[in-house]
Amino acid sequence: MVKNQFSSKYVPCLVFSILLNLLLTVNIYVGTSRLSWSSTAAAEAEAVAEIGCSGHGRAYLDGLLGEENEPVCECNTCYTGPDCSQFIPHCTANADSGDPLFLEPFWLQHSTSSALVVSGWHRMSYSFTHNTLISQQLESLIRKLHAFVGNALTRNRYIVFGAGSTQILNAAAYALSPVNTSQSPTRVVASVPYYSLYKDQVEYFNSERFKFDGDAYTWRNRSDARPSTNVIEFVTSPNNPDGQLNRAIVDGTNVKTIFDRAYYWPHFTPIPAPADEDLMVFTLSKLTGHAGSRFGWAVVKDESVFNRMVTHMQLNSIGVSRDTQLRAFKLLKAVLEEGTGIFDFAYRTMKTRWERLAATLLLSNRFSLQKFNPQYCHFYNEIRDFSPAYAWVKCEREEDKDCYAVLKAANIIGRRGNVFGSEDRYVRLSLVRSQDDFDILIHRLQKEVSEEDGARIM
Amino acid sequence: MVKNQFSSKYVPCLVFSILLNLLLTVNIYVGTSRLSWSSTAAAEAEAVAEIGCSGHGRAYLDGLLGEENEPVCECNTCYTGPDCSQFIPHCTANADSGDPLFLEPFWLQHSTSSALVVSGWHRMSYSFTHNTLISQQLESLIRKLHAFVGNALTRNRYIVFGAGSTQILNAAAYALSPVNTSQSPTRVVASVPYYSLYKDQVEYFNSERFKFDGDAYTWRNRSDARPSTNVIEFVTSPNNPDGQLNRAIVDGTNVKTIFDRAYYWPHFTPIPAPADEDLMVFTLSKLTGHAGSRFGWAVVKDESVFNRMVTHMQLNSIGVSRDTQLRAFKLLKAVLEEGTGIFDFAYRTMKTRWERLAATLLLSNRFSLQKFNPQYCHFYNEIRDFSPAYAWVKCEREEDKDCYAVLKAANIIGRRGNVFGSEDRYVRLSLVRSQDDFDILIHRLQKEVSEEDGARIM
Repeated sequence: MVKNQFSSKYVPCLVFSILLNLLLTVNIYVGTSRLSWSSTAAAEAEAVAEIGCSGHGRAYLDGLLGEENEPVCECNTCYTGPDCSQFIPHCTANADSGDPLFLEPFWLQHSTSSALVVSGWHRMSYSFTHNTLISQQLESLIRKLHAFVGNALTRNRYIVFGAGSTQILNAAAYALSPVNTSQSPTRVVASVPYYSLYKDQVEYFNSERFKFDGDAYTWRNRSDARPSTNVIEFVTSPNNPDGQLNRAIVDGTNVKTIFDRAYYWPHFTPIPAPADEDLMVFTLSKLTGHAGSRFGWAVVKDESVFNRMVTHMQLNSIGVSRDTQLRAFKLLKAVLEEGTGIFDFAYRTMKTRWERLAATLLLSNRFSLQKFNPQYCHFYNEIRDFSPAYAWVKCEREEDKDCYAVLKAANIIGRRGNVFGSEDRYVRLSLVRSQDDFDILIHRLQKEVSEEDGARIM
Repeated sequence: MVKNQFSSKYVPCLVFSILLNLLLTVNIYVGTSRLSWSSTAAAEAEAVAEIGCSGHGRAYLDGLLGEENEPVCECNTCYTGPDCSQFIPHCTANADSGDPLFLEPFWLQHSTSSALVVSGWHRMSYSFTHNTLISQQLESLIRKLHAFVGNALTRNRYIVFGAGSTQILNAAAYALSPVNTSQSPTRVVASVPYYSLYKDQVEYFNSERFKFDGDAYTWRNRSDARPSTNVIEFVTSPNNPDGQLNRAIVDGTNVKTIFDRAYYWPHFTPIPAPADEDLMVFTLSKLTGHAGSRFGWAVVKDESVFNRMVTHMQLNSIGVSRDTQLRAFKLLKAVLEEGTGIFDFAYRTMKTRWERLAATLLLSNRFSLQKFNPQYCHFYNEIRDFSPAYAWVKCEREEDKDCYAVLKAANIIGRRGNVFGSEDRYVRLSLVRSQDDFDILIHRLQKEVSEEDGARIM
């Protein structure tokens, strides 16, 4: 009887165990673990993601390799060591380029919705169905996004893709300058301070069709500026470097305007109304932070301008990499799924950075910041402060004519005013870089201000 | 006792069942099924890959959507229906562009080694560590690949990346033409028949630095061609359209040569020796078949030329998309892991296509093909036939001056001779497209030849 009692205890255990086996088997063969060709790559990517770099660096699939050919940490500028935990003392604060790594933590938090798996045979062809160079699905997401944010009208307009706004801006300049070179070349202008790429590109490509002619204000007031001259004005709004919502300066029948709207997103500026210009340029870089993906787009009213831009993309690079288009598709899908999520995150980050910067310079008589009047933002339905990507710092002392040198002496690298066609009394400091870069910048500025003769006392 | 015997039978079952429980649990938590953030994306990609399109189409993650927003088949040109199984009668054979889909089956067979998982935070920055725009790991793979194939010397040379050879070719033209525009512009030439992009790009970008001047032979024999004139010669070897191993035509102290080596891989041509020119251009498109990825590179001897090309990439697009660089890295890693695999596959495919084409036109008095003398190939260590990407078809009849029109009447779209600076008595037929496109081309040609008056009788 003892034996019998014992065996009857086994029965529910066995039943449970068998059921568990069934469940686990179903989990393996029906759940996500059913994966076949993608599982090795997925495991590899997750293993690289798990390499700890102390929050001051990152390992990548195509990254630097260690002694045993394993990916190792690539450390942020001021950190070193195998896990990037060692701070490099007296390290220079880098506030130069607009590398938008302030958004990296958002994507670390949204790893599932933004992960992408690419098959070896994905879109090998030059063209998409219907013989275009652009993904219709991505185009449709971009239209949805503008409608959601309310920062640009896209209805009845064309959309063209490029390798970042960089390639798009050049395509727009070519598309808007007449081909007939018997006319005098189109004059390209931008109001000071302007984003230097406009000048650099026009001068580098050196086309007979256009010449760079400097400041838009100066051009407008020139006595020899005839109304028959073809002009292209670049209007950056919000402006790079100073964050102002610039408007066009030059007008006339032969004036075309390219609106660079790279920073027209609610984390940098209030959105007073959807932009409604003939040619507007946007980029993923300042929206999601993926500068490295090189993806931008233009929203274009005129069909012939659009067609000329498409030709430009064809002859320059046969369109934008399909890999990049797929990545942009996945990222923008994740953005839209999160509602206001990315804008809330980015605004919070930028606002906090501006508050820390303003608090630091509040004590200074030597450095001043650009000023803004808060405006109504239709995205957030409230009056909002500006929190632009860059601080446009002025050295106030008479003798500090070279503000870049002043900051450099304080171990801070900014970008000098004359790069933007302005005086060297100004320096642009990038506020969109990694948290490490920003923290070091603030630390260096605090030190400099605290040592300032005659700094205001709190 | 009966009950007791029954219960003792349970014991091994229970032990086995518990062991199985443990094994399955370990499988789930330690095996590939341990995946976290990548598993949803992986399942999604595998689901799309499983959509059946009868081998005449494909569904993509960013592809066309059905009524319930699910990805649907995108059919090859001559097929239709929900699963692409319906052939469209009287469909035109497309032999126009060099869309290299002949390599797609290779990647379907190597799905595991070529799969790629990209995290949402992958390489968001503008630059790689050490402030470059190019992945060192990818550069090192490219050097390994050239060493393995023996088609180019890369030691002590620089490598620059571009958006396909398209962007690289333009960068090279800018880099090799003097900036000083007080000199007369650099003359750009190429021997007929030439790849039309050289002309199209130079004319489109319309720089004061260079002008297109047509055929290299004609230029060499011109009485006004002074040795002091700056000249750039594009040499395509193997040539597009005719597959010949072209050499430079023009020489002189002020002559620079750009070697377009896009087709210098053992599946298209015997490799007599590694290429050893000052500036050589390659592209992923004609190596792995990933035209859509837009990835190319140049191998450059001179440091200052390399630096100018890097500046070009910076101003044109701030380098090549990091997503594309990661994809190219994964694909080239898979290529190298397979040894001669991809070249064997690609050569077999091209050779079979050439045999079918030659057999079809053997009966014809109307159409002829370019001729080749087999050469020693150092990659395969044997004498080999050419199996180039394109057939350069000549219409032999006196009255068939417009060979493109003759083929068009036969429902075949090629590319007309004058696009390559040649006579319209020639047409280029692309042989690297999908198997469907090739099969339809052969079918149309067979029909045309069989109806030919005076076709040779077998």
